[in-house]
Amino acid sequence: MIKKYLMTPGPTPVPEDITLSMAQPIMHHRTKEFKSIFNETKELAKQVFQTKNDIVIFASSGTGAMEASVSNLLKENDKALTVSAGKFGERWGQIVRAFGAEAIELKYSYGDYAKPDDIDKALKDNPDIKAVYIQASETSTGVFHPIDDIGLMLKEKYPDVIFVVDGITAIGAVDVKTDDWNIDIMITGSQKALMLPPGLAVMSVSDKAKKTIENVKNRYYYFDILKEIASDGGSYTPAVTLIEGLNLSFKKILDEGLDNLFKRHTLLAKATQEAAKALGLKLFAKRPANSLTSIEMPVDSTKVINLMKDYGVHVSNGQGELKGKIIRIAHLGYFDKPDMVMAVSGLEIALKKLGVDIPFGEGVKKAMEIFVEE
Amino acid sequence: MIKKYLMTPGPTPVPEDITLSMAQPIMHHRTKEFKSIFNETKELAKQVFQTKNDIVIFASSGTGAMEASVSNLLKENDKALTVSAGKFGERWGQIVRAFGAEAIELKYSYGDYAKPDDIDKALKDNPDIKAVYIQASETSTGVFHPIDDIGLMLKEKYPDVIFVVDGITAIGAVDVKTDDWNIDIMITGSQKALMLPPGLAVMSVSDKAKKTIENVKNRYYYFDILKEIASDGGSYTPAVTLIEGLNLSFKKILDEGLDNLFKRHTLLAKATQEAAKALGLKLFAKRPANSLTSIEMPVDSTKVINLMKDYGVHVSNGQGELKGKIIRIAHLGYFDKPDMVMAVSGLEIALKKLGVDIPFGEGVKKAMEIFVEE
Repeated sequence: MIKKYLMTPGPTPVPEDITLSMAQPIMHHRTKEFKSIFNETKELAKQVFQTKNDIVIFASSGTGAMEASVSNLLKENDKALTVSAGKFGERWGQIVRAFGAEAIELKYSYGDYAKPDDIDKALKDNPDIKAVYIQASETSTGVFHPIDDIGLMLKEKYPDVIFVVDGITAIGAVDVKTDDWNIDIMITGSQKALMLPPGLAVMSVSDKAKKTIENVKNRYYYFDILKEIASDGGSYTPAVTLIEGLNLSFKKILDEGLDNLFKRHTLLAKATQEAAKALGLKLFAKRPANSLTSIEMPVDSTKVINLMKDYGVHVSNGQGELKGKIIRIAHLGYFDKPDMVMAVSGLEIALKKLGVDIPFGEGVKKAMEIFVEE
Repeated sequence: MIKKYLMTPGPTPVPEDITLSMAQPIMHHRTKEFKSIFNETKELAKQVFQTKNDIVIFASSGTGAMEASVSNLLKENDKALTVSAGKFGERWGQIVRAFGAEAIELKYSYGDYAKPDDIDKALKDNPDIKAVYIQASETSTGVFHPIDDIGLMLKEKYPDVIFVVDGITAIGAVDVKTDDWNIDIMITGSQKALMLPPGLAVMSVSDKAKKTIENVKNRYYYFDILKEIASDGGSYTPAVTLIEGLNLSFKKILDEGLDNLFKRHTLLAKATQEAAKALGLKLFAKRPANSLTSIEMPVDSTKVINLMKDYGVHVSNGQGELKGKIIRIAHLGYFDKPDMVMAVSGLEIALKKLGVDIPFGEGVKKAMEIFVEE
């Protein structure tokens, strides 16, 4: 028997009580009972998103909400700035083009983060840009973009530009102030910090975004933001069991308290990052996110990951050009201190077995020291 | 305590073993283990769909697959024939127009069914129609369209026209021969006869449809049929728990055997229909489906439904103009003989309480007789 520990940046483990909440008898979606859960869930979402804006929940992966934020906002030939520093940033450009709009791509190398000044310049050079699309945390590299500074810069200098943030590995893990940071559309998915199985996308939509959407006619039906906002309990059959799980997930997050939640994620990130450094390893992200840690490997990372798997700890490889170069350890959602010690121990054992010269034991020791100091 | 019995045409009850299969620890979607489940599930789907065509599974409601079958097949200004005899037929027209194509609507009154000759005539009058969109069973009225005759007529007279069938309340309940009946795209959703929570759409796609899709450039990203067919384990994060449930659902269906499954549904439909007639009530559908029975009510059906609910039996009202006029009793998926007796008893008790003159007891007696004769 090898006991499995899922430590990938999505899907992440689901707490037992949430699993049980989704194993109840099926509820009909047009009942008062379900509508009340659905509406309460949206209200809870506002607290977790730190927003007063409307909430929309789609039965889809997070990509569905990314698509909605493009197809509902952009007309044919509209210009959008897409910020790309990894696989998910590139996805913005692909979606914008798929809907007949023009993507002006601000491209950074993998591991790097967006600079507000670059965005300022791109907007100055292209005054007809209608919206800026970016990630909060770029899951493929573990970078956290300074969406606070970018949002505040946009608010001051380009108040008409719509600001869309993919917060799929940020919401519920990192302190993201949707309203204070001028974020018109904030997106997340169920299978990350929300501690649920995949299948739901959640987004908040500002009044400014809604006004823009009203004047757009692109092509969409299922991902219709205004229709969902106007609907009572969802336009089509919602994923009722996942919504019940989401309701409990938000309650658990708010019971822990957002401040405690953010502190826990900050601590887990710090322990993982410092443990890697104590082993003489290099962090891949130039501005690491608190939701996952990507670490450069001195040997083929696929070998490291396979040995960690033999030990029971499942972490992620790099994607695309990063495959074989980095590992990505998740600490968003249902994770705590012992999980991080376990992950680092797996990494140390794998590297040792591969003959890499590391100060064996110093990684876990460093993580433990950080937990003592806390 | 009022024990609840969900007898609505979707969502439908989920068998306990399927619920448990979805309550297992979360699996990562890029593992061999999950990909093998995903690929096996597609193979099982082919058997249930009675097709050799490719299978696509989306994380969405059934409407997502309906949209994909429009956005992937039709270009701007392409002409499509949409057959409408209820709320879901109307949805075809809405989706076609949302994607910039022209919907020629063949409209029947609610309760009526499509005639192959009418479709033939519409295609003769509009030789540039590219695709025909229809339901197998129109869930809002309980009608089953003769998709066998329509499919065979199309095959003979209009071999280039793509035939798209929404089988959301048919697949897994009614004998629908996708390949034999010339159906290029067949669609279903998880929360009907597949006995799962809502959240998945499943579709089969013929080579003819794939060839058409290759030459189309409309606007979509998430619902990309060819991308999904080419992907190994889904292009975006699949709804892993629902896929695990779907895998077991297909196995249960095939273990029962398609013939037995269709016989069971035919029997349950017959018992429900004959019970209604024995009570002096009128069936609303001119060509009733084996998946649900819609019955005209001599009093406000909302009152009947509420009294049935007090008794524990949850059935559906009419939709739109049919609200207050009919009730809809489901018998697709996880239903058996005693369920039908229970449903009819609830109907009788409700009508009696409302002072309607019915031969009390004759409905359940009739259903029981049919089960004895069987």
